[in-house]
Amino acid sequence: MPTTQKIRYSDCDPQGIVFNGNYPRYWDDALTDWFEDAGLGGPGLGGAGVDVVTARLEIDFKASAGLGETLQTEIGIERAGNTSLTLSFDTRRLSDGEVVATGREVIVFVDPLELKPTPPPEEARARLLGQTG
Amino acid sequence: MPTTQKIRYSDCDPQGIVFNGNYPRYWDDALTDWFEDAGLGGPGLGGAGVDVVTARLEIDFKASAGLGETLQTEIGIERAGNTSLTLSFDTRRLSDGEVVATGREVIVFVDPLELKPTPPPEEARARLLGQTG
Amino acid sequence: MPTTQKIRYSDCDPQGIVFNGNYPRYWDDALTDWFEDAGLGGPGLGGAGVDVVTARLEIDFKASAGLGETLQTEIGIERAGNTSLTLSFDTRRLSDGEVVATGREVIVFVDPLELKPTPPPEEARARLLGQTG
Amino acid sequence: MPTTQKIRYSDCDPQGIVFNGNYPRYWDDALTDWFEDAGLGGPGLGGAGVDVVTARLEIDFKASAGLGETLQTEIGIERAGNTSLTLSFDTRRLSDGEVVATGREVIVFVDPLELKPTPPPEEARARLLGQTG
Repeated sequence: MPTTQKIRYSDCDPQGIVFNGNYPRYWDDALTDWFEDAGLGGPGLGGAGVDVVTARLEIDFKASAGLGETLQTEIGIERAGNTSLTLSFDTRRLSDGEVVATGREVIVFVDPLELKPTPPPEEARARLLGQTG
Repeated sequence: MPTTQKIRYSDCDPQGIVFNGNYPRYWDDALTDWFEDAGLGGPGLGGAGVDVVTARLEIDFKASAGLGETLQTEIGIERAGNTSLTLSFDTRRLSDGEVVATGREVIVFVDPLELKPTPPPEEARARLLGQTG
Repeated sequence: MPTTQKIRYSDCDPQGIVFNGNYPRYWDDALTDWFEDAGLGGPGLGGAGVDVVTARLEIDFKASAGLGETLQTEIGIERAGNTSLTLSFDTRRLSDGEVVATGREVIVFVDPLELKPTPPPEEARARLLGQTG
Repeated sequence: MPTTQKIRYSDCDPQGIVFNGNYPRYWDDALTDWFEDAGLGGPGLGGAGVDVVTARLEIDFKASAGLGETLQTEIGIERAGNTSLTLSFDTRRLSDGEVVATGREVIVFVDPLELKPTPPPEEARARLLGQTG
């Protein structure tokens, strides 16, 4: 289920539009929801015994959004590796569907103590790959 | 209409709960919605020709909230002055209704250029005072 | 030692001045430094075995600050209780010394697991009370 | 001159390290300083009559940073186009010089009203290209 973000005063910068540095937070919030939708919500991916770190982030800013608009972020799976996932992110204005920000993140599964790459449990992996965004 | 805030990873600090410094942002977001509900949304209070600054903020932190919980903030009017309003804020956990943060803000109407106190137009004032939270 | 905060683009809102909701973060950052200055830096107050939560926050916003200005926050002790401290905060513009935000925070020492009030170890307490701001 | 960022409690997430979504803010803060170092500080690039928007952001997260550490971000010019600049960003731990985050941003000069691409004044451009990071 896509995550929505209503734009308030606190999101906007002196140009009167969403500060570019806020989009990574919106994407991380969408990612939190995406794990939750797969039944892996809460600390430690819902008890799956692994944690997740972000290894790479790419954003293309295509348009701007202002006060009162609502943004919707959708996540897709681009590539599934052994200990990592490459996820696509598309953030659109809800009003007209225009893409505001698009890109990808590489996330890596890690053990919670050392934060070293480790494959997720098979069941958690299956749940995530079964997500349709 | 109360404003809800779902707690994601980005809201939480090393204690695993919402960072206390985030509540003023949640309250400002609720305030943005409160103006919008009164038909005064968008820049310059929807064309009313006045802007708003915060003069005082008081928060009592009563409980904590963690990942996956949803907070709901309600605003009430405590006192209506000539150029200012004292508003009460109550933030509760949606799940059990427990108050997490409570307090007040004094907001001041100002002219958009000099940010000096100025009474709001009568119609804008009437709309805000007619709000029921 | 007072904590300084240089104001950049990301700190400012559509009014072109520091977003009011950022001051609690600046104060928490100053508080982090204040503990560090007392030799209690890092997680768990530097191994003192207690953690700290904020119970109350009061801010009076007296003036605004814009891009390129530097703010300086000084902390003082107003009252020392058994399990809590009431601290004063003053944030001034470095250029002209004008007070931009002033107020207080009540912080409570808690055990790291249950986050229940607990007196800090005597040595940690002595170090904090010996701080001169 | 590189921009330093001391890591406080408010920068860290439940993993106890800097939240990945904060790095774009640190980079934007470094960018604000970079313009200032070129004599183009303040609103509207110091009166140059152009504004700047970010078109693309790429970050590789190489290591983590925790409470009390200080990060230093250095900016270099990778490519100078007519209306855009591609800038490299490297963020290192000050203590051991290890790269924590590295990547690039494409920034575009725009007119302040329509936010459409426009070449910067020749003098502003010369000042920026003369920066040595």
